[in-house]
Amino acid sequence: MNHDYIQPDNWSIIEEGFDASRVKSSESLFSIGNGAMGQRANFEEHYSGATFQGSYIAGVYYPDKTRVGWWKNGYPDYFAKVLNAPNWIGINVLINDEQFDLFTCKKVDDFRRELNMKEGWLSRSFKATLQNDVVIKVEALRFLSLDLDEVGAIQYSVTPLNTDAKIEFRPYLDSSITNQDTNWDDKFWDTLSVTHQDNLGFVLSRTMKTDFHVSTAMLNELSLNGEKIQSNKKIKEDINSIEFQYNVEVSKGETITLTKFAGYTVSTNHEKEKLITASKEVLLKASTIGFKVLLEQQKQSWANIWKKADITIQDDIKAQQGIRFNIFQLNQTYLGKDARLNIGPKGFTGEKYGGSTYWDTEAYCIPFYMATKDQKVARNLLEYRYNHLEKAILNAEKLGFSNGAALFPMVTMNGEECHNEWEITFEEIHRNGAIAFAIFNYYRFTGDYSYIQEKGLEVLIAIARFWHQRANYSLSKKKWVILGVTGPNEYENNIDNNWYTNYLAQWCINFAVENIEKIKAEFDTDYTRIMNKVKLSNAEISTWKEVADNMYFAFSEEHQVFLQQDNFLDKELITVADLDKSQRPINQKWSWDRILRSPYIKQADVLQGFYFFEDHFTTEELEQHFNFYEPFTVHESSLSPCVHSIQAAKLGRMDQAYEFYLRTSRLDLDDYNCEVEEGLHITSMAGTWMSIVEGFGGMRIKKEMLSFEPRIPNQWEAYSFKVNFRNQVVKVIVSQSNTKFELEGNTELQILVNDKVVTISPNSLVTV
Amino acid sequence: MNHDYIQPDNWSIIEEGFDASRVKSSESLFSIGNGAMGQRANFEEHYSGATFQGSYIAGVYYPDKTRVGWWKNGYPDYFAKVLNAPNWIGINVLINDEQFDLFTCKKVDDFRRELNMKEGWLSRSFKATLQNDVVIKVEALRFLSLDLDEVGAIQYSVTPLNTDAKIEFRPYLDSSITNQDTNWDDKFWDTLSVTHQDNLGFVLSRTMKTDFHVSTAMLNELSLNGEKIQSNKKIKEDINSIEFQYNVEVSKGETITLTKFAGYTVSTNHEKEKLITASKEVLLKASTIGFKVLLEQQKQSWANIWKKADITIQDDIKAQQGIRFNIFQLNQTYLGKDARLNIGPKGFTGEKYGGSTYWDTEAYCIPFYMATKDQKVARNLLEYRYNHLEKAILNAEKLGFSNGAALFPMVTMNGEECHNEWEITFEEIHRNGAIAFAIFNYYRFTGDYSYIQEKGLEVLIAIARFWHQRANYSLSKKKWVILGVTGPNEYENNIDNNWYTNYLAQWCINFAVENIEKIKAEFDTDYTRIMNKVKLSNAEISTWKEVADNMYFAFSEEHQVFLQQDNFLDKELITVADLDKSQRPINQKWSWDRILRSPYIKQADVLQGFYFFEDHFTTEELEQHFNFYEPFTVHESSLSPCVHSIQAAKLGRMDQAYEFYLRTSRLDLDDYNCEVEEGLHITSMAGTWMSIVEGFGGMRIKKEMLSFEPRIPNQWEAYSFKVNFRNQVVKVIVSQSNTKFELEGNTELQILVNDKVVTISPNSLVTV
Repeated sequence: MNHDYIQPDNWSIIEEGFDASRVKSSESLFSIGNGAMGQRANFEEHYSGATFQGSYIAGVYYPDKTRVGWWKNGYPDYFAKVLNAPNWIGINVLINDEQFDLFTCKKVDDFRRELNMKEGWLSRSFKATLQNDVVIKVEALRFLSLDLDEVGAIQYSVTPLNTDAKIEFRPYLDSSITNQDTNWDDKFWDTLSVTHQDNLGFVLSRTMKTDFHVSTAMLNELSLNGEKIQSNKKIKEDINSIEFQYNVEVSKGETITLTKFAGYTVSTNHEKEKLITASKEVLLKASTIGFKVLLEQQKQSWANIWKKADITIQDDIKAQQGIRFNIFQLNQTYLGKDARLNIGPKGFTGEKYGGSTYWDTEAYCIPFYMATKDQKVARNLLEYRYNHLEKAILNAEKLGFSNGAALFPMVTMNGEECHNEWEITFEEIHRNGAIAFAIFNYYRFTGDYSYIQEKGLEVLIAIARFWHQRANYSLSKKKWVILGVTGPNEYENNIDNNWYTNYLAQWCINFAVENIEKIKAEFDTDYTRIMNKVKLSNAEISTWKEVADNMYFAFSEEHQVFLQQDNFLDKELITVADLDKSQRPINQKWSWDRILRSPYIKQADVLQGFYFFEDHFTTEELEQHFNFYEPFTVHESSLSPCVHSIQAAKLGRMDQAYEFYLRTSRLDLDDYNCEVEEGLHITSMAGTWMSIVEGFGGMRIKKEMLSFEPRIPNQWEAYSFKVNFRNQVVKVIVSQSNTKFELEGNTELQILVNDKVVTISPNSLVTV
Repeated sequence: MNHDYIQPDNWSIIEEGFDASRVKSSESLFSIGNGAMGQRANFEEHYSGATFQGSYIAGVYYPDKTRVGWWKNGYPDYFAKVLNAPNWIGINVLINDEQFDLFTCKKVDDFRRELNMKEGWLSRSFKATLQNDVVIKVEALRFLSLDLDEVGAIQYSVTPLNTDAKIEFRPYLDSSITNQDTNWDDKFWDTLSVTHQDNLGFVLSRTMKTDFHVSTAMLNELSLNGEKIQSNKKIKEDINSIEFQYNVEVSKGETITLTKFAGYTVSTNHEKEKLITASKEVLLKASTIGFKVLLEQQKQSWANIWKKADITIQDDIKAQQGIRFNIFQLNQTYLGKDARLNIGPKGFTGEKYGGSTYWDTEAYCIPFYMATKDQKVARNLLEYRYNHLEKAILNAEKLGFSNGAALFPMVTMNGEECHNEWEITFEEIHRNGAIAFAIFNYYRFTGDYSYIQEKGLEVLIAIARFWHQRANYSLSKKKWVILGVTGPNEYENNIDNNWYTNYLAQWCINFAVENIEKIKAEFDTDYTRIMNKVKLSNAEISTWKEVADNMYFAFSEEHQVFLQQDNFLDKELITVADLDKSQRPINQKWSWDRILRSPYIKQADVLQGFYFFEDHFTTEELEQHFNFYEPFTVHESSLSPCVHSIQAAKLGRMDQAYEFYLRTSRLDLDDYNCEVEEGLHITSMAGTWMSIVEGFGGMRIKKEMLSFEPRIPNQWEAYSFKVNFRNQVVKVIVSQSNTKFELEGNTELQILVNDKVVTISPNSLVTV
């Protein structure tokens, strides 16, 4: 727990005082990113204490050879990993020939670190007394430009306070880096060349196997008391690194500043042969703009993001800081410009979990991106899966499916499956359903049918084929069953007829058929094109329908609930409340088999289905299922509380809803699980946003209209959020007494508030 | 497949002609062992072709750090491995300074290898033309002494055929060996000293972590044309090895012979400080006895083994060779002298599977050892588990059990669990049942109750406690259920109410209670001692009984069979006969999830229960279950066919019984699975024995009497087997026309033949 360590502030994450034992967790919390690259908040200068150095480039990965204890047929050979990339932030500093290192200083005073979320920059300042008794003041400011997303900028200033001093800056680039989590100690990077030109340095390297080429480059400028100066430099090159050495005699009280523009150009965006040229061009451009103006542009770009995405919480500074931290980190991770990218569970803040794409994207992140960005962003996330459709079909073939059936991967970088636990990789197949649901959800929210017509239908057909083949007819039940699956509740494995999975499978088939019919009726050319491609007959569709129409759902007459799986009621049904607290969290205290045969639920499972398909069920049914399942739910996934918070709010249980909200809103800031040093929980941050907007705000789409049922926790005076609905931003301000709506757009909009139509007009406030 | 490669012979395994591509598989097939140590049939001289060098010492292991892809709570930290031990067979040979190497010879003629199973020795002879055109004849004879089980003896003779030649023998010891299957490339052995004295050499080494100390030693003698000669030697020592170099000028046609006595003395049997002395003593003893006499003793010792264990098959030489190979290898692996040892699945012939003890021992091997050896041997196997009881209790505690409940390990060396697949390690808990069943089986066969009274009852109580705790009450079924298990059919994982497991659990409790009552009534002192130790109350026993009396068994009214697990009938029930042959073996062709949701059974599961508890069911019930389950059984475990063979024989389906018998009788000799180079399938060899004795011979114990229902496959003229029943050997000779019984004992014996009492007298033949 990190409780009260981070200073409360509406817009910034602030750390005061230097504590070597906090360095690794702060490196995670103060991480910065711009969607194209990102990095942990490592110090620029040498640091000999415990640190986890990490810099990552979106989409650059390495297929690490799989390591398992016992191989199972069907396992992928490789596990694609986010790759720790060459270091470009490094600036070694020598004071009178002593290497400056915060870990070995005699004294560090006034240490302050700030991550300014409003403006998108990271700063650090302190006074340090070196072993040689020179006292220096350091101020460092760093940001990853949103505008030039291949560039990061650092301004690093040193002022000797008690004496004149010889100050040496050694900015460097280094590609001799490794991942913390290699399976076989493979070498991931190969350096191709180390070169320099004027004040520019370049390290050209390539990734092994995947052959991504990356030019890591820097441009360095020196100034004294704010005035640019020229200084002779020495250059040190070795096989993997280049270092410039600037040596300046600085008088007591004077400030010497190194400005370092640096970053990556990557072969995914440039021709391999032109990477160094591209680096040079973009760094010279940054230098011409200048640090100050680039920073102003950064502030403006972040202001534009917040304009659509901000949530305010009145008179609760920690809650305010928490929700903004979540929104900020999501935006640092993924901005939706590039359909080849996706939202890794740790973003650019760590290496755990490998891969970049889980079903988290479709189930939790898409709602956030749909409502806070242009609709093109959510569409890019859908296209990511469309672009992987062929690989998903190959993946299904590997597992014995045929005829164009697709199984999208559980974890992926490039569309290939890269996870290897049979109970997850092969059996957690409900991910296919979330991918289809996201297509529906996008259309429902944006009203943009063109995606389905152009691309989505092929995905829906391949998924319907999968479900049709994956189900089998039970002579005993006289229904279609789906055996051997793992549902969203990963605390049950290889179960039969997981209700959520069966329900999604049925829905996927029906939704595919519905859209085939719609496209047949309305978009003749697309229909012909797609049918020629996928070779789908009416007879085949009939076989799908047979499965969907006769799908089995286990139902308990006694409890009047759908059963999570066939044998759920055979378990020893002791609620979490009656479970000895010493036994929790069960994922740390219990052996795996004990967890599996227990009734405890890791995250919403049947209730996840009620969340997706809320309008298929009555509120009474929701209540019945919530009352039955939530008491067995241990919420040991960070993705669990948000769905429960939304449903508790819908059931009018605001205290419970608020309690669920709190569980994740400051999960990382307060380091609830004592593991934030490994990186942040990026995807669950979208769940926190959902808890406020869909839970408290009751935001839904009904009859093609934005709909709200605003509620507010007793603990808050007021809160507000924004929703970008079909290119107009609706701001919703909920207080204890009323709700106000404001339209930041041009066209009058009809919305539903508690199921009544309300008309809101541009730039005027409506109070309900 | 190796079909027809091994020459048919009643008593020997013979290979003719040198084929480098067969070297590794022949190294397995010609393996030799004496229960205390064993080795693959590696060549003595240097060999540069593909080879798998392996020498193993019973009970000497290394706990290799576990390697898994994804850690699950409860996994053991270590995986105990059979350790590849220092090489003592090595004799490098130089002919006119050229290293002799079969792989690089110009020509190899008359190559012949023989493993004589009757007498327990391995020989090799051939003519080789070296690169330097010297033609030599080589004859090598090797055996591991049963009488001095720390000693192996080699006689290695070279005759230059076409010229006089300088022949150099370089016998050596080498402890710089590694396992093929290390997880982390750990170093397993540390050499402590390399020393020599006269014609003796010693390498003292210790295993890392486990600190077993081993003295590997040799004593070398030289003779020319059968006459001992003295020859000066050079000695070469390095950090891990010692080599003696004997250089002799040998005339054309003369034979120079090196006799090497060598082997291991181990700290499990000697004080660490006295290992070298012990080595010296035993080697000098062997030398004094002399190679020839030691070999005569070897023949006698093997004759004694065969006297109790032989099976003959008339006029079917390949069948005869197959069954003797199985009996021979079982005896090479385990002789039952030492209760610390057990029967590894690969014996001393390879490293696969690690560990030495599986439930194979109790379910398949104990019947063989009970019937072919003194009853002390089977008792030693039971005591092995008793000695591990404390660790089994700790293992259960680690998984959340308490109050002295024991879960014996799935795979072990020293009583600690060392396997790490959750669906096996944590869930294949039926192994506990086989361990209790073996106690019953031992008592039933030997009539020796003292084991239960002295030790066995504690094991039974700890196992009963486990089952009581592992079951839970299902409010929905109003019965006790056992959820989340893997049965003997490992092609289903994490299933509920596996019939075999539930039935064993119920039986274990009842058997424990029955014996508690018996000991209470008949052995007062033991009762008090044990009850004081385990603190068992009548109230606790009542709670066990509640579980046993109300255990749930899924039963299909439609099929009139017990269901292998609750949801078996939801599967797509296509029989193996209707499955496309191209899909088999499914463990190579299908992904794991597909196997799991298929109806296909790897090895007897419900039928394993019918095998154990045959007398609990009618023949009609057996037939009903056999007809239902066998058609879904793919027999992809080498332990599957034997149970089915026994049951087919009982049902009078001799063609089917014979077909099942054939599947394993020459499994290794004919290398059915193309993997014999990894080692032999030792434990399934006991199943082949069972197929003949219990299957064809119909041997059972009924009413404390040996009982037979002899049958004979049409393919055989006659066969015979022997059963050591309560210290008298009964020989049974079954022909197409009748069955003869012969008693090799002193006391008249009443046996049952087809349920009728027959009296047999010492040394007279009774024909039925």
